[in-house]
Amino acid sequence: MTNKLDNNQFKKEALNRVRIAEGHLKKVESMLSGGAYCLDVIHQSRAVQAALKKVDEVVLHGHLHSCVLKDMHGSRSQNEEMVSEIVDLFSKKA
Amino acid sequence: MTNKLDNNQFKKEALNRVRIAEGHLKKVESMLSGGAYCLDVIHQSRAVQAALKKVDEVVLHGHLHSCVLKDMHGSRSQNEEMVSEIVDLFSKKA
Amino acid sequence: MTNKLDNNQFKKEALNRVRIAEGHLKKVESMLSGGAYCLDVIHQSRAVQAALKKVDEVVLHGHLHSCVLKDMHGSRSQNEEMVSEIVDLFSKKA
Amino acid sequence: MTNKLDNNQFKKEALNRVRIAEGHLKKVESMLSGGAYCLDVIHQSRAVQAALKKVDEVVLHGHLHSCVLKDMHGSRSQNEEMVSEIVDLFSKKA
Repeated sequence: MTNKLDNNQFKKEALNRVRIAEGHLKKVESMLSGGAYCLDVIHQSRAVQAALKKVDEVVLHGHLHSCVLKDMHGSRSQNEEMVSEIVDLFSKKA
Repeated sequence: MTNKLDNNQFKKEALNRVRIAEGHLKKVESMLSGGAYCLDVIHQSRAVQAALKKVDEVVLHGHLHSCVLKDMHGSRSQNEEMVSEIVDLFSKKA
Repeated sequence: MTNKLDNNQFKKEALNRVRIAEGHLKKVESMLSGGAYCLDVIHQSRAVQAALKKVDEVVLHGHLHSCVLKDMHGSRSQNEEMVSEIVDLFSKKA
Repeated sequence: MTNKLDNNQFKKEALNRVRIAEGHLKKVESMLSGGAYCLDVIHQSRAVQAALKKVDEVVLHGHLHSCVLKDMHGSRSQNEEMVSEIVDLFSKKA
């Protein structure tokens, strides 16, 4: 499969979310440096992780949108590769 | 509880890991911008999430180190608050 | 989509794994009843959860195998529904 | 540490929840046998996993309740062992 994030809508949303996550991660750094309460630091770090999970969903959605809805009439072996990749993604979910 | 990340060893390690995570997150952004393969973007994003989970562990370790090993002879209500916070952290784990 | 677990190979493996998980869950019950060490009970409970995640993967694999490789030449709206279901599954992952 | 689930309140609640989880897991088995829709099977399996996470929280709560609130005046090495166990539990969270 050669599916890239050429779908502008998904790409734009994913990039936007990554940049917001970067801002939140900067906040984790400043909280640590500034001596914030430990559990507040962990809550902020988890907010970043949740934001990145949302990025993953957007990217996956764009991927499936391209693969399944456009490229699906490829060869049988290409389709099997796609199925394996999705199951693999699911099983390794962080 | 007024436990702060005053423990230099834990704080230093946590900050170091946060900065590494920031570098990896920059890579997610450039992969998205550069049109990398979708599933590679997700794998990179998950590497950042795993790095942040490791930060959380270091911060929690520092927290418990201070609370449990030093402050534990506080009042019963302080101790109950600490137990509630840990269970809460555990149940909301991202 | 009307995809059912008619694929015997996947169904058989999933059922086999569910039965093993049932055995492990019985063990959690007997450990609790018998007064086992708390953290050992949690480790056993997590083994059951890991076993069920593996069941989910097998079921998803069977599902995608049928949907993507066989039914994929359905209508555009059916395909979009399938994509939404997979993204939904991914986002709600336990 | 020799902390056991001797605290009747926590033990009773945990056992009750395990038995409910067993009932839900039986349902997963019958859904698989009966040819239910794949994604419904996965949703049911995840309900069991969520129920077991709740069991883990109850058991952890009972554990900390005993350890931290009662045994905490043990030796320094016992306390350090307890901290390590909690961090370990946190890092391996399923």
